Amino acid sequence: MTNLRINTERLWGSLMELARIGATPKGGVKRLTLTDEDRRARDLFVRWAREAGLAVEVDAVGNIFARRAGTDAAAAPVAMGSHLDSQPSGGKFDGAYGVMAGLEVLRTLEDAGVRTRAPLEVVSWTNEEGSRFTPVMMGSGVFANVFPLSHVRAQKDIDGVTVGDALQGIGYAGAAAPHGLGAYLEAHIEQGPVLEAEGRTIGVVQGALGQRWYDVTVTGQDAHAGPTPMELRRDALLGASRIIQEVNRIARAFPDNARGTVGFLQVKPNSRNVIPGEVRTTVDFRNARAATLDAMCAELERGVRAIEAECRVRVELRENTYFQPCEFDPAMVAGVRAAAAALGLSHRDIVSGAGHDAVYVARVAPTAMIFIPCEGGISHNEIESATPADLAAGCNVLLHAALGKAGVADSRRAA
Amino acid sequence: MTNLRINTERLWGSLMELARIGATPKGGVKRLTLTDEDRRARDLFVRWAREAGLAVEVDAVGNIFARRAGTDAAAAPVAMGSHLDSQPSGGKFDGAYGVMAGLEVLRTLEDAGVRTRAPLEVVSWTNEEGSRFTPVMMGSGVFANVFPLSHVRAQKDIDGVTVGDALQGIGYAGAAAPHGLGAYLEAHIEQGPVLEAEGRTIGVVQGALGQRWYDVTVTGQDAHAGPTPMELRRDALLGASRIIQEVNRIARAFPDNARGTVGFLQVKPNSRNVIPGEVRTTVDFRNARAATLDAMCAELERGVRAIEAECRVRVELRENTYFQPCEFDPAMVAGVRAAAAALGLSHRDIVSGAGHDAVYVARVAPTAMIFIPCEGGISHNEIESATPADLAAGCNVLLHAALGKAGVADSRRAA
Repeated sequence: MTNLRINTERLWGSLMELARIGATPKGGVKRLTLTDEDRRARDLFVRWAREAGLAVEVDAVGNIFARRAGTDAAAAPVAMGSHLDSQPSGGKFDGAYGVMAGLEVLRTLEDAGVRTRAPLEVVSWTNEEGSRFTPVMMGSGVFANVFPLSHVRAQKDIDGVTVGDALQGIGYAGAAAPHGLGAYLEAHIEQGPVLEAEGRTIGVVQGALGQRWYDVTVTGQDAHAGPTPMELRRDALLGASRIIQEVNRIARAFPDNARGTVGFLQVKPNSRNVIPGEVRTTVDFRNARAATLDAMCAELERGVRAIEAECRVRVELRENTYFQPCEFDPAMVAGVRAAAAALGLSHRDIVSGAGHDAVYVARVAPTAMIFIPCEGGISHNEIESATPADLAAGCNVLLHAALGKAGVADSRRAA
Repeated sequence: MTNLRINTERLWGSLMELARIGATPKGGVKRLTLTDEDRRARDLFVRWAREAGLAVEVDAVGNIFARRAGTDAAAAPVAMGSHLDSQPSGGKFDGAYGVMAGLEVLRTLEDAGVRTRAPLEVVSWTNEEGSRFTPVMMGSGVFANVFPLSHVRAQKDIDGVTVGDALQGIGYAGAAAPHGLGAYLEAHIEQGPVLEAEGRTIGVVQGALGQRWYDVTVTGQDAHAGPTPMELRRDALLGASRIIQEVNRIARAFPDNARGTVGFLQVKPNSRNVIPGEVRTTVDFRNARAATLDAMCAELERGVRAIEAECRVRVELRENTYFQPCEFDPAMVAGVRAAAAALGLSHRDIVSGAGHDAVYVARVAPTAMIFIPCEGGISHNEIESATPADLAAGCNVLLHAALGKAGVADSRRAA
């Protein structure tokens, strides 16, 4: 099997055809979950899956499973997948790549007449992005028992439409019974700049960073910028600027892939000659180890108390979200690394900074991910881009990692 | 004359009656320039002026001059005044106090039968606030030949209405010929916290700070907060936070009443888990000396170049506005100080951080200002507040400083 390769042109062609659904003028994709665009993308995937001889099932939260039988009917399936929904200004590859790569693996095996011991599945998880309905990673979260089905079905979009009604509306409220997975592999663009910066093709993903998000309010006193001497000010934006510095200092000082970001900031009254009386902002801390993440947060708490005294402001830090760090299955990760090495692809171990369906699936099945470079590390953007060669390389790693896990039973072709 | 005092209750009553025009539910005033509210306030002032026996004239930009004759018809008038327009969410005292205090001085002289050598005038300048039409301090600016009349008459509000049409519309496009002033005195709330913090009643205003305003754009690269390592970021908000710190550091390091404020800040894309790619912000630098203000700006330029290199961002600084520092006439300032001392009022020298009509009038007449405390230093706000006692104290200083300049000719009362 070591010479088996996926069809680069077919993978690229499928991605480009899929990207026409919800295509935006700037070359991106707007395919919000459970909209008509999502339905059309699902329908196309289902059609292609059936054309490839796969058995398609949909579960109650709209996750689609397209299965190719193995020789051992008792073996739990080895699944590959990701999601077909996008951000409002999304790109062609985030999510779509993982689903199309899984499909391409099964098409390749079908062409080559390879039978696996364990069944193989391609999965499209519902609502990974969380743009229309929260929580993010909804479908994989329900699959992994993170969220009760009844809870997510009742979630509403901005117009008051529930997930349950939206699923019904597009015809993807399925009845498939829950089933276990023997393993899960997800191919994805990196969404970061590391692989491109180092000129490597494959990221062997060790796991995902834990995340702790805060809402922050800095309260001072707004006052006229002219008549108020510096020493009598209670400048909320000066306080917020110190918090931004502190978040960045902490993220650079701590180990274990520490990251710290202040991405949102709103000033009141936001007038050039008025000292700001209130700033609302956010903190996003990430780390590969839960204990280190906790230590970063404790350090921020201490820093904020000092900033309050120095800047004569009051700072309220409210935890908003917590995702624990995720470590993928070492044997699965080793399988990805071995496949990349056997294919002669340059690779490196990497930790995912973002959440992915794989993070939830990892709670119920041995899981790993495969990253490939994306141009400039840019994602969640219409200009998101990846090369056909890199997309094919990641898909070949997926093929061989999946085969390694599922086991080859027999083939028309010589090994 | 040293025992002569204004009528505290009448001054307070006039201010409160005037504040009913454009009154807001929160106790403030919305009286945008050249609106119907402004017209009603002008009409009330003109009626009161005529009732006090004053001769009223209106010039081509709507400035109102209410004159009480002196015994020396050749002497240039000593004027007192301020403005009747307000910010959209303004208070009862900003501007209104200076006009009502001038009127109260003339009512007091009338009651006491005091005749002055030089004529006395109360002036209400058009559009000091600049909220509806720019530039700010429009009427006094035209009077002092800072702006050509034709230029300001052509200025448009957000609905496309010109100053010329608005003046015509409220009936205040006058025909008074330009005339010189022998002196000008403006009583005003401090709009800052210094007098209140020190427990003093009178601010003897030395002049006004020069101002230099910048528009600032910080350009980095927006990227996903999770997958982007700290060392590969180009975080525009991190750069902006450094600029905020630098502006504050400079303002604290330089002498001559240096002030530095970042009051406005806008982040793109402003999402909690996206590293900001662009920040638009502003800098407001003020100083009593032009050379020191220049040095502050040069220091900021240098600081910004270092921030660009450190944070891997590009910073564009564009000068937006420049007001040169203003020094009031030393003899006029001494007259205010002497009046405060003679009245036994606690006082201190102070520099105005804000612009006032007096800053422009100072270019064409010997000028000084009198500050009184306002609660919490708060102004341009519906909760702006001052006490009847402080308002009366400032008005008594105005009375005696004006008398000192105009000269007492004769009186029914013994001096």
